[in-house]
Amino acid sequence: MAPPVSGLRELRSRRGEMRSRVELLLMETQARVCRALAQLDGAAAFSVDSWERQEGGGGISCVLQDGDIFEKAGVNVSVVFGHLSEEAAQQMRSRGKTLKTKDGSKQWWFGGGTDLTPTYLNQEDAVHFHKTLKEACDKHGPELYPKYKKWCDNYFYIKHRGERRGIGGIFFDDLDSPSKEEVFQFVQSCAEAIVPCYIPIVKKHCHDSFSPEEKLWQQLRRGRYVEFNLVYDRGTKFGLATPGSRIESILMSLPLTARWEYMHSPPENSKEAEILEVLRNPKNWVH
Amino acid sequence: MAPPVSGLRELRSRRGEMRSRVELLLMETQARVCRALAQLDGAAAFSVDSWERQEGGGGISCVLQDGDIFEKAGVNVSVVFGHLSEEAAQQMRSRGKTLKTKDGSKQWWFGGGTDLTPTYLNQEDAVHFHKTLKEACDKHGPELYPKYKKWCDNYFYIKHRGERRGIGGIFFDDLDSPSKEEVFQFVQSCAEAIVPCYIPIVKKHCHDSFSPEEKLWQQLRRGRYVEFNLVYDRGTKFGLATPGSRIESILMSLPLTARWEYMHSPPENSKEAEILEVLRNPKNWVH
Repeated sequence: MAPPVSGLRELRSRRGEMRSRVELLLMETQARVCRALAQLDGAAAFSVDSWERQEGGGGISCVLQDGDIFEKAGVNVSVVFGHLSEEAAQQMRSRGKTLKTKDGSKQWWFGGGTDLTPTYLNQEDAVHFHKTLKEACDKHGPELYPKYKKWCDNYFYIKHRGERRGIGGIFFDDLDSPSKEEVFQFVQSCAEAIVPCYIPIVKKHCHDSFSPEEKLWQQLRRGRYVEFNLVYDRGTKFGLATPGSRIESILMSLPLTARWEYMHSPPENSKEAEILEVLRNPKNWVH
Repeated sequence: MAPPVSGLRELRSRRGEMRSRVELLLMETQARVCRALAQLDGAAAFSVDSWERQEGGGGISCVLQDGDIFEKAGVNVSVVFGHLSEEAAQQMRSRGKTLKTKDGSKQWWFGGGTDLTPTYLNQEDAVHFHKTLKEACDKHGPELYPKYKKWCDNYFYIKHRGERRGIGGIFFDDLDSPSKEEVFQFVQSCAEAIVPCYIPIVKKHCHDSFSPEEKLWQQLRRGRYVEFNLVYDRGTKFGLATPGSRIESILMSLPLTARWEYMHSPPENSKEAEILEVLRNPKNWVH
């Protein structure tokens, strides 16, 4: 199947700008992930929207909807430059770090991550996902995976529920050392890990059957996903607070459907209680 | 049908505390609204949960789920006292007003409102809703309805969408003048208007049929409702930021089901476009 990402190439040539190595890595990763997802789905293609931001920057949003396997799959690249609004800068300030962008001094940092939000726990899948990420991290230092795994568990925390959004992965959002080159190499390894982390899990389960009760639990978990993204996610808050943002791209990650029930609580020893336990008390999946 | 609100009376007697006139008004209003909704639904009853907050205060949550007419109806009273956390105080600070609660000085204010969030526009209903509110306000001064109608339009604004959550109503959130007595009388009139505002509209339409396309549009509008409540609503943010809050009560107002589609845009001259126009440019329904 032809990968439906010709928009990428078009954008690249149309704008005729020099692109940084980081931007090219992002775009290449976007194309690679889209290709893998579209090939797996087989039925639906990605629609590609490229957009420019009047105040500086722009992005490419790739969305597949209503596929045979994927209800909604989104792969986004956004590049925003220019002065940060006070509100947006606040969202980017991590752990007390101050960004100095107003006096014209260049500041760079890198943030990223990948995590998994399954409806039910499958131990084997959790181990595969984390093991693949650990191998990518380990190439750059044995301390990285444990550190970014923990960061991920802390980041995707729905405070008001006392539970995480999913079973984690890795997360980092203000890497600026030891050097640009080393950070770039690390980010590249992580980017290359996305497809082998995720695609085998989808392949393994995409023809599994499910009951109406299981579907309902999925919908409730998606409700929690929405809560996290709208209340806590710094990327979303940054986007909503950045004038000229493309709102459809920012909110693309919201699920097609979600559900909220008052006082829903799964029975003890159920499959639903099993994953809740892991969401409340994250486990180490690889040692 | 017996109103399923015996929990209210129970709580009142069980705790044996002196309750302020405002609290009693809130509880009476809650009981009256529950009774009207349960009577109309005819099938489902309200479950009543009373809870106490360790740090001070508590509340009563009345929720009806899975009725013949109402999928989910919630009527909440929360009374929180004690020191405000910095985060919570920030959510309560309206228009630059500073609350002085830390030095022990008593400060009171009143906030409230009522608004309507229909899926489609029905002019007659919009006029009825606003007219009933206007009559309640007019007893206390001709300037009140226009002022609080406008406040409502400004408050329920989903900034990132450029549209309001619904067709408005009245809203005020820091009334502290001219006197406690006059504010109380005004709030009482508003509270009494809730049932006559809303119930006739439900009665009129509860047996209307609808198409799958109309249901889908309702789901998308509910998605916007979720966006407003989680991103902007000060009540929700105050609740999420207040330690010891009862999360199920705060998030009770989220819809049973909601939907997000990438780049959904209704066709010109459709019924969907008609209400979008009003959500983007609020109308005056009564003069």
